Amino acid sequence: MKTWRLTNVCPFGGVASTVMITDGRISAIAPGAVPPDGTPVEDGRGMLLLPGFVEGHTHLDKTAFHLPDWLVNQVGPRIEDKIDTEREWRARTGHDAGAASLALARAFLAQGTTRIRTHVDVDTSAGTKHVERVLQTREAMAGLQEIQIVAFPQSGMLARQGTDALLDAALAMGADIVGGLDPCAIERDPVRHLDIVFGLAEKHGKPVDIHLHEPGTMGAFSLDLILERTRALGMEGRVVVSHAFCLGDIPERDRDALLARMAALGVAIATTAPASRLVPLVAPCRAAGVTIFGGNDGIRDTWTPYGSPDMLERAMLIGLRNNFRRDDEVAVALDCVTGAGATGCGFDAYGLEAGARADLVLVEARSLAEAVVARPTRRLVVSGGRVVARDGVLLA
Amino acid sequence: MKTWRLTNVCPFGGVASTVMITDGRISAIAPGAVPPDGTPVEDGRGMLLLPGFVEGHTHLDKTAFHLPDWLVNQVGPRIEDKIDTEREWRARTGHDAGAASLALARAFLAQGTTRIRTHVDVDTSAGTKHVERVLQTREAMAGLQEIQIVAFPQSGMLARQGTDALLDAALAMGADIVGGLDPCAIERDPVRHLDIVFGLAEKHGKPVDIHLHEPGTMGAFSLDLILERTRALGMEGRVVVSHAFCLGDIPERDRDALLARMAALGVAIATTAPASRLVPLVAPCRAAGVTIFGGNDGIRDTWTPYGSPDMLERAMLIGLRNNFRRDDEVAVALDCVTGAGATGCGFDAYGLEAGARADLVLVEARSLAEAVVARPTRRLVVSGGRVVARDGVLLA
Ligand SMILES: [Zn+2]
Ligand SMILES: [Zn+2]
Repeated sequence: MKTWRLTNVCPFGGVASTVMITDGRISAIAPGAVPPDGTPVEDGRGMLLLPGFVEGHTHLDKTAFHLPDWLVNQVGPRIEDKIDTEREWRARTGHDAGAASLALARAFLAQGTTRIRTHVDVDTSAGTKHVERVLQTREAMAGLQEIQIVAFPQSGMLARQGTDALLDAALAMGADIVGGLDPCAIERDPVRHLDIVFGLAEKHGKPVDIHLHEPGTMGAFSLDLILERTRALGMEGRVVVSHAFCLGDIPERDRDALLARMAALGVAIATTAPASRLVPLVAPCRAAGVTIFGGNDGIRDTWTPYGSPDMLERAMLIGLRNNFRRDDEVAVALDCVTGAGATGCGFDAYGLEAGARADLVLVEARSLAEAVVARPTRRLVVSGGRVVARDGVLLA
Repeated sequence: MKTWRLTNVCPFGGVASTVMITDGRISAIAPGAVPPDGTPVEDGRGMLLLPGFVEGHTHLDKTAFHLPDWLVNQVGPRIEDKIDTEREWRARTGHDAGAASLALARAFLAQGTTRIRTHVDVDTSAGTKHVERVLQTREAMAGLQEIQIVAFPQSGMLARQGTDALLDAALAMGADIVGGLDPCAIERDPVRHLDIVFGLAEKHGKPVDIHLHEPGTMGAFSLDLILERTRALGMEGRVVVSHAFCLGDIPERDRDALLARMAALGVAIATTAPASRLVPLVAPCRAAGVTIFGGNDGIRDTWTPYGSPDMLERAMLIGLRNNFRRDDEVAVALDCVTGAGATGCGFDAYGLEAGARADLVLVEARSLAEAVVARPTRRLVVSGGRVVARDGVLLA
């Protein structure tokens, strides 16, 4: 049994406390100091203590983050332009999803992110290659970072025959979650698309996470079909809708009716809180009892030059998008990349409490809000009870 | 005559060049190296060279950036809540606009910002005290940073008798620009408000910069009145409208009619590109020939916990708000905090060209877009030909 203690830290900005860590878990956390008993001690010097961050929606496999040359973006405005450009670029350059995902996962860890849900492309051009390579990254990071892999039909399933069989194979080889994509706007046959997605979920006993960019009443219709299937198949608590932009641009009464159904079915929302379009706002979702959590989506890839492996930055962007100014509101933005992220993705043993996995982040900040707006250097990152980074730099 | 040269730098990400600096100005800038001639040399190691950044709209006097305690925000949602809370907090705590503005101005300089337009509160509670103190900061930064001071009636003029005389005094003591505020929504008498603002501008021969938060057709009406007075008083090229949110939420035809008039009158727009509300978008403004430039607005004050003295971060937020993804688009976001900022605020001798003031920033970035999305450490900041900061830290 390996025990150590982290002293003089302020959990969520509260009073100075001591964290006892035993065999990779928090065995006790309580205000004040604890008399020395010979166990090793790390002095937290009064810093703010947060749980390891949760990246709830990203695409580790797509990134150009690790490449020596800057990836110039000249992509057209339509979603189809982006999908085609990416698939062709990946094939042409021999883009290695293993090296990409490992470099980005490590950058996330250095910044305190210990749990990641990543959507990984499966298509008839690359087959399951990207999933295989990200599975290797998951293996390489085991014990340091928990990575959930969504088998994601980025190029669509219905127009590209055989994609469903590839998704099936990806799930069989270890992908954790069945992905989906715009059942109306991209797939053009929502029932057939969703029947495949939910069919695979049932066959493999795995949850679902669907990219839903569709706006307005079209998106609301797709969401309606998703909720219908969630209930019919008893998949309560096992479905995430990513983006769900439609919830930002339908009348509030219609939005609230959908949110009430989502809350009853435990369907969560992943949001990147983009500044340039209407989005589901955090406050009405939470008020309705719907879990909404944050993610970058792609990071420095063919889709976007933006994004960062720093989840405090994503919390800031969520705060800005939702006009969260009061300290209690900024704390909600932070919850989107911590507690709500763990709940929405189903990461267990999470949090600053006895029994949780000891995933800890220390920053110099006088309040939760300051941690979000200033995004200070991660002085210490602990994962599974081990110190893995200091001052923003990985130790190994 | 003091001459030195900065070698091996890539202006705006172009080919490696040499910059010759003589008596605080760029005397030459050209691709390639220049044979040694005994003048001192600084090796730019192939880094990206940008001109000093322009903060086009901030409130140096309001910030709590420099205070030892975190300022907890519990302010209500209405603009009047924010105005009253701030004025009372400043009076109660004896908030020192001199120390505040100096600390923030120095932080801006360390991050490469060499020109700032700051709106400074003038009201019947504080009188011209804040302007006096920011004038001292301007003096302290002279030669290092050019600061324009807007005498700003934050609490309104019409409901608080004597504010117009205080603005008059502030302009007489050295404020550069006449400020104004929501002629309809706050002042409730647009003609009387604008007559005072433009009257002071005429009396002192100084330009105008008006905060216009008003949405929709109300804001468009106020803007119409501003343009009418700009033309009538021959103030072409000397008026800025800050925020101009109305241009983001009126029909495009009405917007374009206003933009055409603004272009003809040389009326520029300052934007913070907030994520949580409709804003004038950069592309249609520029297409119409209207200068639109960026600023933080308040930084860590009673209004907002957000904001940063890093103008590359503001460029990123402008890019995100405008959905600028292509490299050429991200370069436009950067222009909002460099060239367009200098044009809009009327800062002269600006840019990376012979004759310009030698205000230079060096960062490690492979492209302009990378400088914006990664916001790398400022390796070198030169102001007026002097090296003032290295690695993000001021030298004096
Ligand atoms: Zn995605
Ligand atoms: Zn302002």
